[in-house]
Amino acid sequence: MELRGVLPPIPTPFHGGELDVEALGRNCDRWLAAGLHGLVALGSNGEAPLLDDAESDRVIEAVRARVPAERLLIAGVARESTAGTVQAARRAAALGADAVLVRTPSIFKAWLTDEAMVEHYTAVADASPVPVLLYNFAALTGVSLTVATVARLAAHPNIAGMKESGGDIGFISELIDATPDDFRLLAGSAPAFYASLLSGAAGGILALAAVAPELCVELFDLVHARRLAEARALQRQLTPLARLVTRVHGVPGLKAALTAAGYAGGDPRPPLRPVGPGAAEEIRRALAALAIRT
Amino acid sequence: MELRGVLPPIPTPFHGGELDVEALGRNCDRWLAAGLHGLVALGSNGEAPLLDDAESDRVIEAVRARVPAERLLIAGVARESTAGTVQAARRAAALGADAVLVRTPSIFKAWLTDEAMVEHYTAVADASPVPVLLYNFAALTGVSLTVATVARLAAHPNIAGMKESGGDIGFISELIDATPDDFRLLAGSAPAFYASLLSGAAGGILALAAVAPELCVELFDLVHARRLAEARALQRQLTPLARLVTRVHGVPGLKAALTAAGYAGGDPRPPLRPVGPGAAEEIRRALAALAIRT
Amino acid sequence: MELRGVLPPIPTPFHGGELDVEALGRNCDRWLAAGLHGLVALGSNGEAPLLDDAESDRVIEAVRARVPAERLLIAGVARESTAGTVQAARRAAALGADAVLVRTPSIFKAWLTDEAMVEHYTAVADASPVPVLLYNFAALTGVSLTVATVARLAAHPNIAGMKESGGDIGFISELIDATPDDFRLLAGSAPAFYASLLSGAAGGILALAAVAPELCVELFDLVHARRLAEARALQRQLTPLARLVTRVHGVPGLKAALTAAGYAGGDPRPPLRPVGPGAAEEIRRALAALAIRT
Amino acid sequence: MELRGVLPPIPTPFHGGELDVEALGRNCDRWLAAGLHGLVALGSNGEAPLLDDAESDRVIEAVRARVPAERLLIAGVARESTAGTVQAARRAAALGADAVLVRTPSIFKAWLTDEAMVEHYTAVADASPVPVLLYNFAALTGVSLTVATVARLAAHPNIAGMKESGGDIGFISELIDATPDDFRLLAGSAPAFYASLLSGAAGGILALAAVAPELCVELFDLVHARRLAEARALQRQLTPLARLVTRVHGVPGLKAALTAAGYAGGDPRPPLRPVGPGAAEEIRRALAALAIRT
Repeated sequence: MELRGVLPPIPTPFHGGELDVEALGRNCDRWLAAGLHGLVALGSNGEAPLLDDAESDRVIEAVRARVPAERLLIAGVARESTAGTVQAARRAAALGADAVLVRTPSIFKAWLTDEAMVEHYTAVADASPVPVLLYNFAALTGVSLTVATVARLAAHPNIAGMKESGGDIGFISELIDATPDDFRLLAGSAPAFYASLLSGAAGGILALAAVAPELCVELFDLVHARRLAEARALQRQLTPLARLVTRVHGVPGLKAALTAAGYAGGDPRPPLRPVGPGAAEEIRRALAALAIRT
Repeated sequence: MELRGVLPPIPTPFHGGELDVEALGRNCDRWLAAGLHGLVALGSNGEAPLLDDAESDRVIEAVRARVPAERLLIAGVARESTAGTVQAARRAAALGADAVLVRTPSIFKAWLTDEAMVEHYTAVADASPVPVLLYNFAALTGVSLTVATVARLAAHPNIAGMKESGGDIGFISELIDATPDDFRLLAGSAPAFYASLLSGAAGGILALAAVAPELCVELFDLVHARRLAEARALQRQLTPLARLVTRVHGVPGLKAALTAAGYAGGDPRPPLRPVGPGAAEEIRRALAALAIRT
Repeated sequence: MELRGVLPPIPTPFHGGELDVEALGRNCDRWLAAGLHGLVALGSNGEAPLLDDAESDRVIEAVRARVPAERLLIAGVARESTAGTVQAARRAAALGADAVLVRTPSIFKAWLTDEAMVEHYTAVADASPVPVLLYNFAALTGVSLTVATVARLAAHPNIAGMKESGGDIGFISELIDATPDDFRLLAGSAPAFYASLLSGAAGGILALAAVAPELCVELFDLVHARRLAEARALQRQLTPLARLVTRVHGVPGLKAALTAAGYAGGDPRPPLRPVGPGAAEEIRRALAALAIRT
Repeated sequence: MELRGVLPPIPTPFHGGELDVEALGRNCDRWLAAGLHGLVALGSNGEAPLLDDAESDRVIEAVRARVPAERLLIAGVARESTAGTVQAARRAAALGADAVLVRTPSIFKAWLTDEAMVEHYTAVADASPVPVLLYNFAALTGVSLTVATVARLAAHPNIAGMKESGGDIGFISELIDATPDDFRLLAGSAPAFYASLLSGAAGGILALAAVAPELCVELFDLVHARRLAEARALQRQLTPLARLVTRVHGVPGLKAALTAAGYAGGDPRPPLRPVGPGAAEEIRRALAALAIRT
């Protein structure tokens, strides 16, 4: 199965504070019907840091039950410890994940040298029954993999690619340049999606794709068809909503957008708080501008 | 029991990668014999983010078994989710912790507004069977509580104090000024200990106190006796070692120092890596300068 | 005259610490022969913050004497004060600059609100006899214009465009999207040049163009001819040298590269220091890989 | 003349945008009558980056005319270039400054290594006819001298001390510990003044001292008399106003406070903007709480 295309990092719906597996399943059906190439469960947009291990397992099970074998299910399994990450990767694989996404550890950032990162990811990749994707999210973690570290790790047979969440296109291009063609770079920044694809990215893991899946797939297809003017125009239309559900309002904004678009959204878990009415209205207007409604 | 004095955030010893409860117990006995006012288990220096819940429980049990009732046992219980923190606080209390230390959540930092922090800590304090200490560690987390937020939280009857890990004495003083006298500010920065005490801090939770407990207690006593010149001179002697086991070499450095001082030190858990021979030698020299040896 | 294409921010050569106007003139002749669309004098790469006003005037005069009327001469005129910037803009215009480039003030960064920036640039644009280009260089200054501020300023009839030095392609695209078509965005990051052009940038002000002018112009032309694969391949070849003469070794690296490429390079002014022999060799190898030699 | 005590970094009054030398003189008379140990002209609080060289000279002349020989006149002379700083130091000395205050260069921050800083300050100190004070202001410049660099520079016979603008008391203490007794550390952070003095600082260069000179001198005297409880209480009273005229409202806030206290305050130069009425009222209340009025 090829690691490419558009995948949303799917939010986790709660009901009364508890995991709502049924609502999650309905969302998955609709995402898959929209033509997405797969789903990413338990990313930061899935509030993974706010779930316990048992809940995490139930999410993977529930999503796998909906994702057919010919589409990708990627599961986030990052923990601060190498051992904990290995365990989570094994569990995710046993539950049917096709690949695991491993955000950099970060709490002990001053001592996470290049060498420590190489050892960490190598240990995880050695142990994981399914391919590993690196995941760099400097704005969230305060830590960044270097091009040299990624180049070293790309040589590991069980490290298949990387999600880069920043929008620095020079850095993204260098990552692509420094790694083999079969190492897949997936953009994590929707405003950078058009440019990332033109620079050699294999696809994107985009929060925006959870609320505007068809349009994200359309952008991907337009770039591949080299219909650049149309692609750039669509990128321009999508960027405002992309900002609202990420940098501006975060996971709470993404959930509000899902609700407005007819998906099961709901409230995030504390300490995250739902967006206020002003933000919700701002998000609704951005959806309306794209003609997205249930 | 009064929240004051010198307490070390105790490292967690491993043997072959597994928790070494027996070694932990021996360390505790020696720390207590040195006159420390209590112990803090499961802080970041205890590699708490690298332990699972079962291991965390075993650490608290093992330490409680050594700490007599008239000394303090504080347990770190921070999780990213409010619910997870509440659960961990309840478990720690059930296992005998006298108070819980709650580092700020941080992964969703952009949305951790003052209001979100107030709700988070209020929920934890409402639910915790034992008093709660706020814990601010901006250099590690990229998040900082504000003076106004701390002032609001200090009014909660079950929030007893705060550990501030930074060395900004203006900020420390403002925290003390903005809170009632029975809200206790504990310094987390050993190089700022002398000045913090003179500014009204009730004590310190200092990594340095795990390797130089007697000297830290002596500094505390000298300040209380207003023997300022001696206190300042001792602070000056202690700062170089304090830097080595925190900002310079972190937890790996602290463990190397413990080993050199005759405690059970050992290696940290990956992705942390032991210090190299040069750093170990640098640490040994700093210990020798203070005449600390097994 | 149209604001587009490839322009180098030209270094300022010194001889015995003094401005070497003659060497500067020779460099200009060679740059212009290489097909560049114009030159930018007195940018940060020109060590403008290390020159006094009289020296600055001599640089503009010397360059204007070499740049024919049908090519652009842009002069950097930023000062911390609005009044000082206005004066410098008037002087530059009187000496023949076609446009002025105004880096954001930055020393009082905490008080440089959007409103303060709008007032600053409006005052400069009102007073300047020639068009003004905004110049955002957050990595150097710690200050960034917002998209909303740039959109407001773009409505000023004497503000013609902007140099954005970062590589965040989402931000670059938003700047282009938020401004009229005749507001020209010039990329300041060579590793982002290919993607910036495909996103609507009118050209670039690139340190790299001072050492590899023909190749930068070729990249510009390839993108305009929509020969994307060739353009992306050339971008890939150019990025390593671009990094060396900017983020890695800065102005000292750029001057070493000029020397190695047969231009007048020389040493920077203190407190900048020349690169060491290792860096010089690294730069020579990067030039050789591009077959650049005198 | 001894480098100690309380000195304000004096603001520069303007009238109709032009330097108001007469108002400056009146302010000086009042400051000196309040018992301050000297004055610091042309610091960042003096808007030095917004003055040209001729204006800077006139400020020094005007202040020297008021400061008697037995009080200190220190002049800020920092420029980005070493040569420019040397020239400014010579001019300041010729105009009667007793010492010069040299803020770190910062615009080329990535290349301002320890070695570059040592060369810069050594060149300035070699050339300056009067003693040099280092000046570290990381929050403003994004650059910080290291303890090791300061220790090296303290050995220069013409480098007499340092102003450290941050409040990290561990760092301040290390600077004092690493330098000889006759190297004088002056606090730049008023909220850290009490603790800095108890840690060995020789005095302070405090914006607060421009609006509350008597109270700052009183705090200095209380600490020297070891009346710690009173000193700490006074520090506590002063901190809120200190924050308002620095971190919260900056130079515009300091000027508003001067106006409210009966000094010549007035507006700052663009791009700085005067504070709004809400901030002015907040500042007046803080002054009233200290019973400061004309």
